[in-house]
Amino acid sequence: MKKIAVYTSGGDAPGMNSCIRAIVRGAAYHGVEVYGIVRGYNGMINGDIIPLNSQSVSNIIQRGGTILKSARSKEFLTTEGRKKAYDQLQAKGIEGLVAIGGNGTFTGAEIFYNEFKIPCVGAPGTIDNDLYGTDYTIGYDTAVNTALDAIDKIRDTADSHDRVFFIEVMGRDSGYIAIQCAIAGGAEAVMIPENLTPVSEVMETLLKGFSKAKSSSIVIVAEGDEEGNAQKVAQKIKDQMKIELDIRVTTLGHIQRGGVPTAADRILASRLGLGALEGLLRGEKNVMAGVVNNQLVYTPFHDTITKKKPVSEDLIRMVEILST
Amino acid sequence: MKKIAVYTSGGDAPGMNSCIRAIVRGAAYHGVEVYGIVRGYNGMINGDIIPLNSQSVSNIIQRGGTILKSARSKEFLTTEGRKKAYDQLQAKGIEGLVAIGGNGTFTGAEIFYNEFKIPCVGAPGTIDNDLYGTDYTIGYDTAVNTALDAIDKIRDTADSHDRVFFIEVMGRDSGYIAIQCAIAGGAEAVMIPENLTPVSEVMETLLKGFSKAKSSSIVIVAEGDEEGNAQKVAQKIKDQMKIELDIRVTTLGHIQRGGVPTAADRILASRLGLGALEGLLRGEKNVMAGVVNNQLVYTPFHDTITKKKPVSEDLIRMVEILST
Amino acid sequence: MKKIAVYTSGGDAPGMNSCIRAIVRGAAYHGVEVYGIVRGYNGMINGDIIPLNSQSVSNIIQRGGTILKSARSKEFLTTEGRKKAYDQLQAKGIEGLVAIGGNGTFTGAEIFYNEFKIPCVGAPGTIDNDLYGTDYTIGYDTAVNTALDAIDKIRDTADSHDRVFFIEVMGRDSGYIAIQCAIAGGAEAVMIPENLTPVSEVMETLLKGFSKAKSSSIVIVAEGDEEGNAQKVAQKIKDQMKIELDIRVTTLGHIQRGGVPTAADRILASRLGLGALEGLLRGEKNVMAGVVNNQLVYTPFHDTITKKKPVSEDLIRMVEILST
Amino acid sequence: MKKIAVYTSGGDAPGMNSCIRAIVRGAAYHGVEVYGIVRGYNGMINGDIIPLNSQSVSNIIQRGGTILKSARSKEFLTTEGRKKAYDQLQAKGIEGLVAIGGNGTFTGAEIFYNEFKIPCVGAPGTIDNDLYGTDYTIGYDTAVNTALDAIDKIRDTADSHDRVFFIEVMGRDSGYIAIQCAIAGGAEAVMIPENLTPVSEVMETLLKGFSKAKSSSIVIVAEGDEEGNAQKVAQKIKDQMKIELDIRVTTLGHIQRGGVPTAADRILASRLGLGALEGLLRGEKNVMAGVVNNQLVYTPFHDTITKKKPVSEDLIRMVEILST
Repeated sequence: MKKIAVYTSGGDAPGMNSCIRAIVRGAAYHGVEVYGIVRGYNGMINGDIIPLNSQSVSNIIQRGGTILKSARSKEFLTTEGRKKAYDQLQAKGIEGLVAIGGNGTFTGAEIFYNEFKIPCVGAPGTIDNDLYGTDYTIGYDTAVNTALDAIDKIRDTADSHDRVFFIEVMGRDSGYIAIQCAIAGGAEAVMIPENLTPVSEVMETLLKGFSKAKSSSIVIVAEGDEEGNAQKVAQKIKDQMKIELDIRVTTLGHIQRGGVPTAADRILASRLGLGALEGLLRGEKNVMAGVVNNQLVYTPFHDTITKKKPVSEDLIRMVEILST
Repeated sequence: MKKIAVYTSGGDAPGMNSCIRAIVRGAAYHGVEVYGIVRGYNGMINGDIIPLNSQSVSNIIQRGGTILKSARSKEFLTTEGRKKAYDQLQAKGIEGLVAIGGNGTFTGAEIFYNEFKIPCVGAPGTIDNDLYGTDYTIGYDTAVNTALDAIDKIRDTADSHDRVFFIEVMGRDSGYIAIQCAIAGGAEAVMIPENLTPVSEVMETLLKGFSKAKSSSIVIVAEGDEEGNAQKVAQKIKDQMKIELDIRVTTLGHIQRGGVPTAADRILASRLGLGALEGLLRGEKNVMAGVVNNQLVYTPFHDTITKKKPVSEDLIRMVEILST
Repeated sequence: MKKIAVYTSGGDAPGMNSCIRAIVRGAAYHGVEVYGIVRGYNGMINGDIIPLNSQSVSNIIQRGGTILKSARSKEFLTTEGRKKAYDQLQAKGIEGLVAIGGNGTFTGAEIFYNEFKIPCVGAPGTIDNDLYGTDYTIGYDTAVNTALDAIDKIRDTADSHDRVFFIEVMGRDSGYIAIQCAIAGGAEAVMIPENLTPVSEVMETLLKGFSKAKSSSIVIVAEGDEEGNAQKVAQKIKDQMKIELDIRVTTLGHIQRGGVPTAADRILASRLGLGALEGLLRGEKNVMAGVVNNQLVYTPFHDTITKKKPVSEDLIRMVEILST
Repeated sequence: MKKIAVYTSGGDAPGMNSCIRAIVRGAAYHGVEVYGIVRGYNGMINGDIIPLNSQSVSNIIQRGGTILKSARSKEFLTTEGRKKAYDQLQAKGIEGLVAIGGNGTFTGAEIFYNEFKIPCVGAPGTIDNDLYGTDYTIGYDTAVNTALDAIDKIRDTADSHDRVFFIEVMGRDSGYIAIQCAIAGGAEAVMIPENLTPVSEVMETLLKGFSKAKSSSIVIVAEGDEEGNAQKVAQKIKDQMKIELDIRVTTLGHIQRGGVPTAADRILASRLGLGALEGLLRGEKNVMAGVVNNQLVYTPFHDTITKKKPVSEDLIRMVEILST
């Protein structure tokens, strides 16, 4: 394999640039030519493909976002779109791909591989950490620390005013960010999609706390909790609560996606970028590089998309014990 | 004057603890006994008043929130409430007060002084910077830096996805935070209560940017803008825009109140705390300590509440030029 | 077991307070009385032992340092000293101990257990990550991120002035912090105790970089490297280098020990604190709680002290590839 | 004036990029062509001069360092060197200059103007804040906050171990950074070049503190203090102290120069960059743009270099009172 290309797709995650850098530098090290596809599958279809070298990725290891940009592509959902993409890659002589992204990215990559057989290896770039086949995804550690920093700030106000705060963190289908934030933020309760915590239970926890002279409380709510988002959950509590609490709601939102990646994310991104590249050069295809028990492993795209990675029961238990 | 008390009231602001520390240490230095009133006017009414000394304020200069807590007090709005408060202070032998807070705090302090003649000097503690009589309020610099940090993170995502972000910052009646964030965050436009920027003008700015190949834009909206909050403004733009833009909205919310105070806020808080205390000891009353052109000045509570501090036209002009 | 005590010893590490909190809250949860020993073995000898409850550890999860303080104890190195310590624990009725610290702490704990048979379980609190029996120690992730933040700042200056910086990070006997910082900081080279990198090799790497138009370089040096500390290494390079480079040296020093713990450190500390406590309650003794491959494990104190945890060869290889 | 150039010179300071951006965008706004001179006077001599436009300065407002790089130039100290520089500017048709830097930069700029009469206006970019003609220099607020963040971390360790720390901050000729850090960091004492604090006085302060049960202390030392740097001062104290204290020394060093600029620095840099540019276009020359009492003013280069800006006595007094 003499010529490969790398792209980022789906929501941006801190560390994507560190990953791009590792792939480009790794390619230089192995004497392979490397291109960047701009705006994911859109750029693949439109031929927005640029040469990269060691210099192109200087001084980006610490930048948030992705220098290759990212975008949704409706056209890539069609056979015609994918045929165009294939033609563009052929025209440039690209023999292999490294895809950085999440669920949607790998779904596209799998279909594309099955149709056109250009080998592709993925690197898991998503703040949600909800991909099977890796203990951690690129961007997750940074997102958790960003959310935690916000929670620390909010606790200052909660304590000063004896308030209850419902804080919504990202996680449409998974409670990974929420559970880490709850433990690290010293929250009184956490509500996540994987685990049915009824509003009544949260109410009980809050009441128990106040009976023990706790003057403020924090509840972390994953955006995809089945009881609703933070706003809805807070409203239900207000409606049912018999004593009057000063309840506030904050949705952390998009700040969780950006920012300077943490050390752990830069190292993970470098390791998985290099792992994806070297896997591709050794003949891996249709798989995602991941880290499981600190070992580099490759998992078929199909499994990363369809299998579910459970949230540890131990962590859920810890939230309860630590708010004692 | 041998015995004084200090309290915080209204929304908490980073640096309030630095201010309390300066007052307590200053009192020790001048040989004056000092008490802390817990939860503002509520604590004054309930006699929740505790002795403080140099040790009590060790290691708090860097803490967000307020160790004396803060609360709204409906009872203090009544003559009976204020009489109770007076009786509590009398019982403790407290001869003077230092009030840390904003508009509402000083409104209460003025009425109370007029009725009971206990000398009170204020220190401006509010993130909004909307008090007449001081160039800067305690907490403002920290709040701006916190919001800016969030804006920097959001720009990573905006750039990666070619998006337009409407970011709402605090400021119900004033655009101070918004204008600083707009300049420092490199925003394309800013919407503040003091200044009528119609939605149509913002739309024009965005279109002009995109015609010059700007791929992303940020608009800062003060929560109290007359066109509505960020959500409403964004909706208006979406409704009227002829080309399709990927528009997102983020409300920064309560994170702006908390956190470790910046150097500027700790120094300002120390200076104003000491200024308020030493003013009180020298016979000042019914005034707020402030810093104007780097000089310590005292302004009657009445003026701080009723007079308007304008946002500099120069700054508004800068946003336009710098987004060229 | 109805009454236990916890202490911190050795150099402080961010997350020690999170660990204390987990032990105290865990004890409350399990109905066990818990005491804090102030200033490690010194406090044990002097009987500086205080009762702790859930309230005592409110709002400390995010604080650097240790609320129980830490100190070296020469007296505990003597049989008489340890006998006094034992008598103090007996007098208070303390039946078990949780020790938070590193090498020195566990050496003391092992001797003490062998002499007096009071069960003790350890939690690894040290920024150096050099303890056998756990993949990560409490404080390590924070220290790496603190050092990395400093390195990012220094790179701004290195790039602006086309300089070579030698940056010394902590690690007297181990290169864990150095290697993580080198990868995450995008360093050109790294010098660690575990691995003989002669000065001549570093010089070659620097020259190769400059021949490829790299205008600045960063070399990370662990304080215990066998070629000497950063100052000495830089001097050797200056002496031997034939072309003139603008070389600077920075020793990060004590900032690496303090600061707000990261999410990972707070969670690890909570998990290991709870793990140590629950191990103790279940009958474990003379062992350290650790996390290996994401599983909680207990390793004899003796092994944690005498066995060596190697730095991954993979990581060393990554520094070379990524600086290509 | 239709064509101007901008350069940075001397030590880099956070906010220099914000300043470059303001100059370039301002030039675009006023329809003036703008060039960047790379590596200060060196680039002027070598003709390393590149065209800049609004796009060139996108997304740099938050970057530390300077995209135009900086360097010392021995050649510019000679008449021949300056003649070459003049010829290069003439060749490019450059009619005016904006210089961003400190003392050395403006010394060069003044000589150059006197010889060749190309109008030049300066913007004060130096972390030291030691320039007459402006209340604040670009980079100062960021440097103080960076140092403060380090001091906060070190206090965690100082408190945990009952230690005395001597922390050296930048400031060869001035104590601006030191005094701000001392107040904001809650230091027990400060030693600055402007003010003779004998070691004996510091020793007395430390002893007084320990007699009042202070368990730890911090002394801030400006690098240019007449008693010597932190290492020397600490040694003197150790030699003369009769009781044994656990004394440590940390030199913060180069981290103070880099990093993301604070809001205040970005705004100041934007304002002064624009002020320098618009001054130049209106006919100012041989002057530095500054902010005094929140007003934009222009001060002759000669005065900025030769006149001394005193450190406020009030601030020195505050350190004493606040450590009571």
